[in-house]
Formats: sequence, C-alpha cells, structure tokens
Amino acid sequence: MTRNLTDQEILILCADTAKTVTSAAFRTALDIDNKASADLAIDPVTAADRDAEQAIRDVLSQNRPMDGILGEEYGETREPSMRHWVIDPIDGTRAFVCGIPTWTTLIALNDGSKPVLGAIDQPYLGERYVGDGSSAHLNNKPIKTSDCAHLADARITTTDPGLFTESETQRFNTIRQASALCRYGLDGYGYALLAAGHIDAVIESGLKPYDIQAHIPIITGAGLNIIWQGGDAQMGGQVVAAATRELHATLLPLLNEV
Amino acid sequence: MTRNLTDQEILILCADTAKTVTSAAFRTALDIDNKASADLAIDPVTAADRDAEQAIRDVLSQNRPMDGILGEEYGETREPSMRHWVIDPIDGTRAFVCGIPTWTTLIALNDGSKPVLGAIDQPYLGERYVGDGSSAHLNNKPIKTSDCAHLADARITTTDPGLFTESETQRFNTIRQASALCRYGLDGYGYALLAAGHIDAVIESGLKPYDIQAHIPIITGAGLNIIWQGGDAQMGGQVVAAATRELHATLLPLLNEV
Repeated sequence: MTRNLTDQEILILCADTAKTVTSAAFRTALDIDNKASADLAIDPVTAADRDAEQAIRDVLSQNRPMDGILGEEYGETREPSMRHWVIDPIDGTRAFVCGIPTWTTLIALNDGSKPVLGAIDQPYLGERYVGDGSSAHLNNKPIKTSDCAHLADARITTTDPGLFTESETQRFNTIRQASALCRYGLDGYGYALLAAGHIDAVIESGLKPYDIQAHIPIITGAGLNIIWQGGDAQMGGQVVAAATRELHATLLPLLNEV
Repeated sequence: MTRNLTDQEILILCADTAKTVTSAAFRTALDIDNKASADLAIDPVTAADRDAEQAIRDVLSQNRPMDGILGEEYGETREPSMRHWVIDPIDGTRAFVCGIPTWTTLIALNDGSKPVLGAIDQPYLGERYVGDGSSAHLNNKPIKTSDCAHLADARITTTDPGLFTESETQRFNTIRQASALCRYGLDGYGYALLAAGHIDAVIESGLKPYDIQAHIPIITGAGLNIIWQGGDAQMGGQVVAAATRELHATLLPLLNEV
C-alpha cells in the first residue's frame, strides 16, 4: 500500500475486488458444492463465493492487518469487541446459480459495538449502495426510504417463504394478505430496495450476522429508524425492517401473535 | 413508413418503442391503479403499462394495419384465426412497482394458428431475448437450454406460490422439495432464463395467452421440445416448461397427482 486508505476507501476496494471475481463467474458453468449437507437448496456455495471472500480477505490483511474478519465462507478471525469486517461475498447464491441478478456482495465494518459502514454491491446491475448510518447513497446519489405508513399500501418482501417455521408462516401470510403486494427471492437486495424507497418492509427469520450487518448503516443512513424484533439486530435472527415507524408499529404485533 | 419492414424488424421496433416508455417510468413515483378490484396485489397496473401498449399499438397500426392485436391492457381487436400480435407491455407489474428489474415487455406474432415470433425485453438490464421457433438469441447471441435431466439437479421457479390452488400447492411443494432449488417472482423473465440455460423448469398456473405466447418461439428456438400440461399451450392456463424431455416427463405425473 502506498498511502493510508480511509475505511470507506477500503470498503470500496473490497467491493471492487469481489466484483472482479463474481462478475467473471456469473452466468457461466459452475461447480456447485454444498457445505451443509446433500441439500443444495439450503445453502449452495460456488467457487466464486470462496474466491471472492479470499480476495476481500487479502485486501483487508494488506490494508487493515489489525482488524478482525467475520466471513460467511471462512469463518471468524477476531476477538470479541474488536474492530472487524463482516463479509458475505455472494449473498443470494441461489439467485446467482439461477442467473438472476439480485445476488449481492455484502461488506460491513463493525467498530466492536455496532456496524458503522456498509456496502451492498450488485455488479451485474452496476448498483452499489453505501451507508454510514447517517447517510446512504446508490452510486454516489443520496437515497431515502419511502414514507409508507399503512400496511394496505406497503410493498413487502421476504427471501423465501419456505424458510419460515409453521407459526411464522401463518403470521407472515396474515401480513401478506393485508399488504399491497409481496415479492420473494431478493436476499440482501431487498434491503437495498428498501433503502432506495422501492420496497416498504422486509421480513425475514434465521439471519446470520453477515446477512444483516452491511444493511444496517445503509438503511439507517437512508432515514430508517429501525426497530428489530428481539435482541440485537446485528446478530441476525428474526428481522422486520420497515420504511417508517408507523409501518413498523403495525407489523410488530402481527408478527408476535401466535 | 418509408419501406416495408420485416416481421422481425416490427417486433424489434415494438420493443424499442415500449422501452422508451417503460424506462422513463421505472423506479420513479407511479400512480398505481387497479383494473380488477381494490386488491392491488392481484393485478397492479401503471400508467406506463397502458402508455407502452398504446405506443406498440401505434407502431402496429402504422406498419401492419391488417393484423389483429391482443393486448393485456386494451383487449382484443382481431377475428378468430387471423394473423395477430400478442402483447403484454409490462409483464411483472408487481416487480416493476417494487423496483425489481425482472419485469419484461412481451411481444409475439401469431400467424393465426400459433406464435411464430417472440420477444422478451428487459430494458433496465439491457437484455432482449428473441426467438422464431427454430433459433433463439439474447442480444443477438445464440442461447440454448440446459441439459438438466433429473429433478434432483433442477433449478425450478414459479412466479408466486400464492397463486396456486391448495392442491396445486401440495403438488408444487413435493416438486420443490425434490428439486435442487426454487426461486420465485420472475414472471416472464423465468422463461428467458430457462431459454438461456440458467433455470431448468418453470411451473405456473392461471396464465393468460399474453403471458405465454412470446415465450413459445423463444424456448422452442432455444432447443426445448416443450409439452404443456393440458390443452393448447398458447392459450395459457397451467404450464410446465422444462429444459429437457426427461425432466418434463418426471414433472408431469407429479403435477397431475391429486
């Protein structure tokens, strides 16, 4: 490194580095293997996923050797409470292997207490969403969430209705039927569209920290006073992110009903 | 008109014309109204949808005044068995209003007995799929379907699992659980990805003729010997389109079980 890069410059460099790897692999033949089990549908992983994470790790170890890393593919190299980067090189691998350009690269910087910088990058669309908790931009243009306050007007999304438990499914269906419309399959890209004002609420469960940390500085930067369902949002789990406090206040009791 | 355009040139001109209208409206504030009822989720229609269809109709009435037209927005102007164009200016309006770039413009030419030319156009992605039943191209590059023969390896899609009846849902879930993976929400773009080899099967019900006719010359042109479930494929209804005869032969009995 020839000079000290800022954290935001590192974030961008990581996204650019991952983009080179993922763009070369998207819509080409892929060897899909599976880290969890023989069940490809649960968690497919591509060579591009691992290569992109390694490329990001190389950037970080060169430029931020003292920082920890939490990645989807290669696990955790950090002490509790230390400054660390949280990366998911290809969020939405199922979309990726179906040629659907809504997978993203997620990168966050966590200061040890919370994520303070985040990037959602979609190379095929040429869309990069970046936020720092007080502002958010799509390709350097400011973005903000919608002003949707009522469920009847709300465009909602979840990645896969099959990922909910039975009781979660019942509660989600009640919300879906009361909403304006519902779309599926967006993974992290749903939060990008939420930040940009095109989607009004994202409801998910079973999230991991690397599924959510990049989104937090972006959606809060886009004007969202987000309240998460139970526990610390950055740890994942069940999540409801809504464009406005009013909409969130409507959704939360519906999700908590048994 | 200064000279006679070929049918394929007309098809392209229609797609270009629609693109101007839809691109200007995508991801901007929209007046969404609803032709069916107060239920926005079932069938949202945007001003762009109507304007794009009118623009295509203008092209056709200028260049093919003797041909009939069947459009989603303005209905039918044709005699039975006459040569006619089948258009859906924005297929996937729910994706459109959520800022998701998987809506498409669908245009088909039907010779009076079957669709003989088709275009699936996605302006935001800059992807135009065109087929004539014996060849298919994405942006002028030949495409072909995958060679996936086994359900366990198959990437399947349906637009919205909520559109199935209860018994259709049960049968679809059986297939989904036996497949490699399942994605939702693609509307006509799913058939484009099928033709290009990224998706291995599309399963849908309740389709209208304008939802399916553009796809037929493209997916058959991409190498697909398609057999549809019941009746004439071009009329819509229940549809199963698979990348190979083997995969189709596996799917059909699973869909027909009660």
